[in-house]
Amino acid sequence: MVHQFFYPKTIAIIGATSDPKKFGNAVSANLVEDKELQAEIFPVNPKATEIFGLKCYESVLEIEKEIDLAIILVPSKAVPLVVDQCIEKNVKRVIIISAGFGEINDEGKKIEQEMKRKSLEVGMRLIGPNCVGIQNIGIGMNASFVQKPSKGNVSMVTQSGSFGAAILYEMVGQGLGFTKFANLGNMIDLNLTDLLEYFISDEDSKVVCVYLENVVNGRAFYNKLVEVSAKKPTVVLKGGRTAAGMKSASSHTGSIATDYNSLKAAVKQAGATLCESLGDYIAAIKAFSFLPEPKGGRIGVLTNSGGSAVLFSDHSEEMGLELVDFTEDFKKKINPHVIPLVKKVNPLDMIAGANGEGYYQVTKAMLEDPNIDIVVPCCVIPTFLEMKPDEHYKGVIKAWNETGRKKPIFPIFMSGSLLDTIKEFAEKEKTPIFLSPKEAAFAVKVLYERMKNYSK
Amino acid sequence: MVHQFFYPKTIAIIGATSDPKKFGNAVSANLVEDKELQAEIFPVNPKATEIFGLKCYESVLEIEKEIDLAIILVPSKAVPLVVDQCIEKNVKRVIIISAGFGEINDEGKKIEQEMKRKSLEVGMRLIGPNCVGIQNIGIGMNASFVQKPSKGNVSMVTQSGSFGAAILYEMVGQGLGFTKFANLGNMIDLNLTDLLEYFISDEDSKVVCVYLENVVNGRAFYNKLVEVSAKKPTVVLKGGRTAAGMKSASSHTGSIATDYNSLKAAVKQAGATLCESLGDYIAAIKAFSFLPEPKGGRIGVLTNSGGSAVLFSDHSEEMGLELVDFTEDFKKKINPHVIPLVKKVNPLDMIAGANGEGYYQVTKAMLEDPNIDIVVPCCVIPTFLEMKPDEHYKGVIKAWNETGRKKPIFPIFMSGSLLDTIKEFAEKEKTPIFLSPKEAAFAVKVLYERMKNYSK
Repeated sequence: MVHQFFYPKTIAIIGATSDPKKFGNAVSANLVEDKELQAEIFPVNPKATEIFGLKCYESVLEIEKEIDLAIILVPSKAVPLVVDQCIEKNVKRVIIISAGFGEINDEGKKIEQEMKRKSLEVGMRLIGPNCVGIQNIGIGMNASFVQKPSKGNVSMVTQSGSFGAAILYEMVGQGLGFTKFANLGNMIDLNLTDLLEYFISDEDSKVVCVYLENVVNGRAFYNKLVEVSAKKPTVVLKGGRTAAGMKSASSHTGSIATDYNSLKAAVKQAGATLCESLGDYIAAIKAFSFLPEPKGGRIGVLTNSGGSAVLFSDHSEEMGLELVDFTEDFKKKINPHVIPLVKKVNPLDMIAGANGEGYYQVTKAMLEDPNIDIVVPCCVIPTFLEMKPDEHYKGVIKAWNETGRKKPIFPIFMSGSLLDTIKEFAEKEKTPIFLSPKEAAFAVKVLYERMKNYSK
Repeated sequence: MVHQFFYPKTIAIIGATSDPKKFGNAVSANLVEDKELQAEIFPVNPKATEIFGLKCYESVLEIEKEIDLAIILVPSKAVPLVVDQCIEKNVKRVIIISAGFGEINDEGKKIEQEMKRKSLEVGMRLIGPNCVGIQNIGIGMNASFVQKPSKGNVSMVTQSGSFGAAILYEMVGQGLGFTKFANLGNMIDLNLTDLLEYFISDEDSKVVCVYLENVVNGRAFYNKLVEVSAKKPTVVLKGGRTAAGMKSASSHTGSIATDYNSLKAAVKQAGATLCESLGDYIAAIKAFSFLPEPKGGRIGVLTNSGGSAVLFSDHSEEMGLELVDFTEDFKKKINPHVIPLVKKVNPLDMIAGANGEGYYQVTKAMLEDPNIDIVVPCCVIPTFLEMKPDEHYKGVIKAWNETGRKKPIFPIFMSGSLLDTIKEFAEKEKTPIFLSPKEAAFAVKVLYERMKNYSK
């Protein structure tokens, strides 16, 4: 059922326009200008004859072909009529982007229910209203007014549209790619549970992430969360954890925000990963998107900066993680690759002069060491001794690639503005970067916890 | 006493070299190539006659002028002899960058103590050994092997050298400028307390930040922390809070890390701001560096993204902050600047279509409202309706400038890769950006707490 939203062959844009000051324009441009998208596009607008070089229709009823998906962008007052026309046309799936319904007042809620009732009677399913739309990045379909991220293995369903977009943009800046994105808005028909169910069987979705404020049917949501978590890592962030947050959330979606304590318990019980800030959310998704599960929890750390590794040790202990003692074998193995000043303890502080080759050798030794399950290469990017700002990161990734990416690595690379070359490299190689000791420790924690919950 | 380290008229670089593969080269280049620095530079290296176009001396003893500051970069074995020569030459201040002393073994500790004893006998003071050096950004002096940040009002003393550098780089990436930077390494003579004392009276230092792992004399440190905190915001981050962290820290500096619970109590008692992660540390320093103190704790939030403001509300409540109810006057005032769909509650969700002009008007109304002390403009940068990615931020700053920057603002701007133009603008205008709801809430909290502790 959800599948047809993501794979339409024909799409009507009702409220398409060439006026760049309207949302209808952004959605039209995003759909029409994507060369990869195979679907046929039908702009609908009684005031135009052509939009983006395509013939424009007076109403959806005039389109000669069957319509798989209609996207509604007209002002809220006109939406019920357009929905009626979609029903008459036998459109299968509808996304109502227009706002001004249940989030505004009770009258809006009534109109929503009436549209829903009529649509479900004929089997026409709805996403929205009051949303930014959906994307199937895998086939180049951007049926939303926000930007499309690069391709990857993450799927997201979010109740907050522009916040969902902010998360997308932030993740793209950190090299994360997506496959499906859906913002559900007021959720009069399709809700979070429907999307979770779809992501369970969608092969392209390797990681599922959810941003939610209120849950429609708690029991159904919980059951689906159990199912999806058993099959793939699922990361949940809830807005409206506190009284103040719940008040904001109610104003935002027009629904009463779900109580956090019960949701928290349910998410943990279901085996999903619960996050409480944007930073933690992104860290968790990076871990699941890029990294294999560890075989155990024994961490090895290398660094060129004592303080960074000290902070990582602190965050690790606070999160219940364990830095392992190095074996004599391991110490012997790394001996040729570190200067005599280096003490062979974990974290291994290779001191400021350590270069990319040293990072490659020591990372590789850790990845090959049966005593170490998780490797954390920590690096303050040096701007001296003619070292290149990306040689340490490249050394680490080379070691990871040569050992078949079997163990998870959490490279912490701190450098401020120097980071761009590394970001590009990371995006090309599909490898993660963590930006602070705390972010990396949290990522280790969630990956390790998932392994404990689901391995064997 | 510390002053002379930061304002030398003559500097000897002992171990200067043209070989770019040595630390001595980085330090030489950083000192010689800065056109702003007025001090005279004397390279010392028996194997060279000229370095960077400057005459090179066989030893410090051969320099004809008096030397205010000598920087020692020779291998550890040669350091005691060089220190003896500095004493003979009557050098006033010495920075030993070379490593390989107390952090390695007891023999190293003995050598350190002997150097210290001899130096103090003649009044020659030491920074180091095992450090990256110091910087006086205000006069263009970079006596270290790390990069120099841009000019500003923040001073930092750090026990971890390359971690200090990482923090510098990260802060520079977020528009923060510095005035003084000192990494003290093994602290055989000058310690954190000496630097705190100096920062109290240094007019250029408006914000003081400290990264520490162990404190030499707890009572003296505490007393100085009380003094400096009373005069200027002081931000403290400690590495080695946990058993694992303390173990790492001991290996790093060769000293036993200070117990965290007693330090925590002391820092709070002293009125300084304690942070427990790199992210919090940077957020606090941004708040103090850029923003005036609030007159109270009543927060007004505007946003174009419901979810972001919901998360900000959550973090605020968790940190004990309060979103104020808008007055009828305020609602009337903003009425012309928001669309009818907008509910006039705090957070004010202006919905995705809000543009830069709307942000300008509403931010200004909040800054002028006697009912609001703190303004949090929250924005997911739109990529539609022909809006420019920086118009909202510019609108916010315009409102802040026009109202005389009297109230603190905490702009949260989320956009991933679009952010560069805003960063440039922020750096030029000397205005802050916060990158997540949690970061902004923490920054509000520390600024508000300082106001409560120190205002009247």
